Amino acid sequence: MDGFATGEGLSLEAPFGHAGGRLHEWMMATRFWAQLAGVQQGGPAGTTGVDDAFAEQHGPGIGAEIMGAGTFGPPGWQDDPSWRGWWGEEPPFRTPTFVLTHRPRPPLPMEGGTTFHFLDAAPAQALEVAREAAGGLDVRIGGGPSMVREFLAAGLVDHLHVVQVPILLGRGVRLWDGLEGLEQQYAVEVVSTPSGVTHLTFTR
Amino acid sequence: MDGFATGEGLSLEAPFGHAGGRLHEWMMATRFWAQLAGVQQGGPAGTTGVDDAFAEQHGPGIGAEIMGAGTFGPPGWQDDPSWRGWWGEEPPFRTPTFVLTHRPRPPLPMEGGTTFHFLDAAPAQALEVAREAAGGLDVRIGGGPSMVREFLAAGLVDHLHVVQVPILLGRGVRLWDGLEGLEQQYAVEVVSTPSGVTHLTFTR
Repeated sequence: MDGFATGEGLSLEAPFGHAGGRLHEWMMATRFWAQLAGVQQGGPAGTTGVDDAFAEQHGPGIGAEIMGAGTFGPPGWQDDPSWRGWWGEEPPFRTPTFVLTHRPRPPLPMEGGTTFHFLDAAPAQALEVAREAAGGLDVRIGGGPSMVREFLAAGLVDHLHVVQVPILLGRGVRLWDGLEGLEQQYAVEVVSTPSGVTHLTFTR
Repeated sequence: MDGFATGEGLSLEAPFGHAGGRLHEWMMATRFWAQLAGVQQGGPAGTTGVDDAFAEQHGPGIGAEIMGAGTFGPPGWQDDPSWRGWWGEEPPFRTPTFVLTHRPRPPLPMEGGTTFHFLDAAPAQALEVAREAAGGLDVRIGGGPSMVREFLAAGLVDHLHVVQVPILLGRGVRLWDGLEGLEQQYAVEVVSTPSGVTHLTFTR
């Protein structure tokens, strides 16, 4: 609620810092997540309401992803040549995935269609490269918040989906700083759901 | 959406600074507001949905109000002995109303039941005085945001109603600063409405 989109103190043990898992509990309860994680025999199949409908949009129509260096790994991952991302050998992106970093390394092909490419580029350039790789599909700006903010400020985002969780993080990385009046460029739709979160979509 | 609860550059001409009327449009559309303003013959009678239901709660059950100095008048009103508040001769409070200021003046009785009292007191003391005056009814902490934040931080608020408007003010006074984890003391309910705003209620 206070605009912090990730916590303070990011580390290998705490990918979202002091926020812990609280920003994603809504998603973990969905069928989308249950299927991604592999439904256990007899385990919960996940909800299929509004939260799930939004979560399910993660994949379809996306041809490439761009993420910030802070999203690919914990602080200092650049010094660890064996770091291969948070997501194991089969990451959920399944497309070319461009990691923006000032210290590029060779491409890293993973299982299931994801290849990590490491790019030292400004947002507009990165988008051009990713759009080329996306083969006519959309490019997802996956995060973290600092990078999303940069893409928004540069006017490069056509569709934005933000999930507001009813907690006050108090510290961390703010999503909205420096974006006064941004809503005037978009049609904004807002819906709260029984899980307690509020989905905000910006479309232009 | 970015947590600013009033704008920058408050003045006699701009009571909410650069926010203008944007934070209150949702309320102006309600029947509550139409009746307060006096419905024009043939004019719109106002909406009666969720926005109105919340707005209608402004009066019933309230026996006293506390407001900050910044809410009673524009910057510098303390230097103007003729300043009687923003609300004309019949303010909508209709109860004893305590204005927290370091420069108290004599009580100001208005029409319709409102009397402004000027108090130089900390939140807990002010609440004690207002509770005494409320005669067993509730005390409303009317604002502005800096004062609400102080009362929240001091643990003096039992029920909080915040309306989130889908705009990014970018600057002004933040409501949520310094309140990390506040939600843990409350049951939080969230509902977005067709007007585009989201009502957040905190109850303990």
